[in-house]
Amino acid sequence: MSEYSRDSRYITTRITADGRDGYPVEPGRYRLVVARACPWANRMIIVRRLLGLEDVLSMGICGPVHDERSWTFDLDPGGVDPVLGIERIQDAYFKRFPGYERGITVPAIVDVPTGEVVTNDFAQMTIDLSLEWARYHRDGAPALYPEALRAEIDEVNDVVFRDVNNGVYRAGFATDQDAYEKAYQRLFDRLDWLSDRLAGQRYLVGDTITEADVRLFTTLARFDAVYHGHFKCNRTKLNEMPVLWAYARDLFQTPGFGDTIDFVQIKQHYYEVHRTINPTGIVPAGPDLRNWLTSHGRESLGGRPFGDGTPPGPPPAAETVPASNGAV
Amino acid sequence: MSEYSRDSRYITTRITADGRDGYPVEPGRYRLVVARACPWANRMIIVRRLLGLEDVLSMGICGPVHDERSWTFDLDPGGVDPVLGIERIQDAYFKRFPGYERGITVPAIVDVPTGEVVTNDFAQMTIDLSLEWARYHRDGAPALYPEALRAEIDEVNDVVFRDVNNGVYRAGFATDQDAYEKAYQRLFDRLDWLSDRLAGQRYLVGDTITEADVRLFTTLARFDAVYHGHFKCNRTKLNEMPVLWAYARDLFQTPGFGDTIDFVQIKQHYYEVHRTINPTGIVPAGPDLRNWLTSHGRESLGGRPFGDGTPPGPPPAAETVPASNGAV
Repeated sequence: MSEYSRDSRYITTRITADGRDGYPVEPGRYRLVVARACPWANRMIIVRRLLGLEDVLSMGICGPVHDERSWTFDLDPGGVDPVLGIERIQDAYFKRFPGYERGITVPAIVDVPTGEVVTNDFAQMTIDLSLEWARYHRDGAPALYPEALRAEIDEVNDVVFRDVNNGVYRAGFATDQDAYEKAYQRLFDRLDWLSDRLAGQRYLVGDTITEADVRLFTTLARFDAVYHGHFKCNRTKLNEMPVLWAYARDLFQTPGFGDTIDFVQIKQHYYEVHRTINPTGIVPAGPDLRNWLTSHGRESLGGRPFGDGTPPGPPPAAETVPASNGAV
Repeated sequence: MSEYSRDSRYITTRITADGRDGYPVEPGRYRLVVARACPWANRMIIVRRLLGLEDVLSMGICGPVHDERSWTFDLDPGGVDPVLGIERIQDAYFKRFPGYERGITVPAIVDVPTGEVVTNDFAQMTIDLSLEWARYHRDGAPALYPEALRAEIDEVNDVVFRDVNNGVYRAGFATDQDAYEKAYQRLFDRLDWLSDRLAGQRYLVGDTITEADVRLFTTLARFDAVYHGHFKCNRTKLNEMPVLWAYARDLFQTPGFGDTIDFVQIKQHYYEVHRTINPTGIVPAGPDLRNWLTSHGRESLGGRPFGDGTPPGPPPAAETVPASNGAV
């Protein structure tokens, strides 16, 4: 194929307050499985943290470098997830759907009692954490998907998904020059549009952090470390786009965002897994990422990051990214 | 192999004023063969221009994308060099050395009457243009290799060659992580050293442009366009190293330097030829290169670019890089 096409067939079962798909929201029953490297899983890590769901929805973390059979729990002692007792997330997929043939992806939520995957429908999953799990949110949890802003958030999310979140993959996995250049142009046109939008307002929609910011952030966090070089998204680095760079640093320095980013795992994942793009598997030593911690000046735009709520506390010890893997 | 090793066996025949190797300096007798993409050939293009040797030493230009049999005259009408009447520079090598087994490289100088290659010893070739061809230099030609500074120029050239000119290749062609990281570290350590050296002085040796500046420049000109991404030399872009970036722009904007740079051909060469690094052959659309023309402020350091001489005039029409391939 010449243009990259994401397999968008996910398991659309939902975990809801009313349990209409057979999976009611229930503390301690489910396990979120992620990989820190993956931008789609990163959304869930951030939203779960912002909403304070750590104690009601546990999290298993796959290593950054999966093989052709997908993500594994190679970071855990013995290479086995301590709650699910499996080595590979595909085991949970096969448990529910023997011979499952679509993508074995993270984020996924597994029903712990049966060991069966419930859903990997990443776009719905974060929304459901906001709306269906509301009863279990921490005190001071922000409203990431408030009703009054929903239409606008959906609209922004839609173009950000097509042109940015997925756009970097479309550029990076293009197999001919023309498809690549179209994706590149579309990506940077959209980044320019986002820069204009964010020049005078602190967040993408309204004056507080929403789901829309979470979704843009996970791509921006990977931009200079991976997409700029590996995916040839190189008109400029993120740090050469002043508005977006300040916006990204503002979020990075907000509790719940930067503390979920593991730059070491992010680089290992893309550069070691995609051998059709990087045959040697060598992981670049750069870029220098200390710049993420520099002052961004976005406070002057006003805005109330958590609205009427409060920032989350620090992550649980077991889920803390080593300092050496962050912006150092 | 794990560490990249350049085949440094060149044809060491020299063209000299006294003709001691059988090839005396003689106007109109020789043809310099280059490719604009190649940093080693780029040195010769610059020096020939600075010294005003265009009318005494003609120049054939190979296209950017060679095959396994090396550089071809695919840019010329019919794919044949109009003076040498050959399609491939290897023909001139084989004419003199049937079955020649070392690298078929540019820059090379060919003896037009016999069609035989004389030399491809790039490090000696620029020095010989300065010293052996002196009788034919233009009025106002600069002294690029003045006797009083020769020891210091040689010393700088030596470390710049090892750590920078060749260092980027050592990083880019490394086939294991350790060899890559060593080359990366050595490269950026040397660039930091060069930044320190150039912070208070306009040129590398003395207060005028010398051979040392030519040699560093051709690598810096390719840094953000190619080496940063393609060779994973990505601690920072050149434009994030303030002293070196200003130094490089100062030279770029000096007649005889920037007007030899064809960014389009440079990118095509590396990204299309090195399929072991870039299997798809897709050429990045970035980076935005207009920044090469921004003001650099280095005039405040003093210095006399051409010493007691003068800048060269514009290049001959046939040797002018299309504006669309320059810093636009």
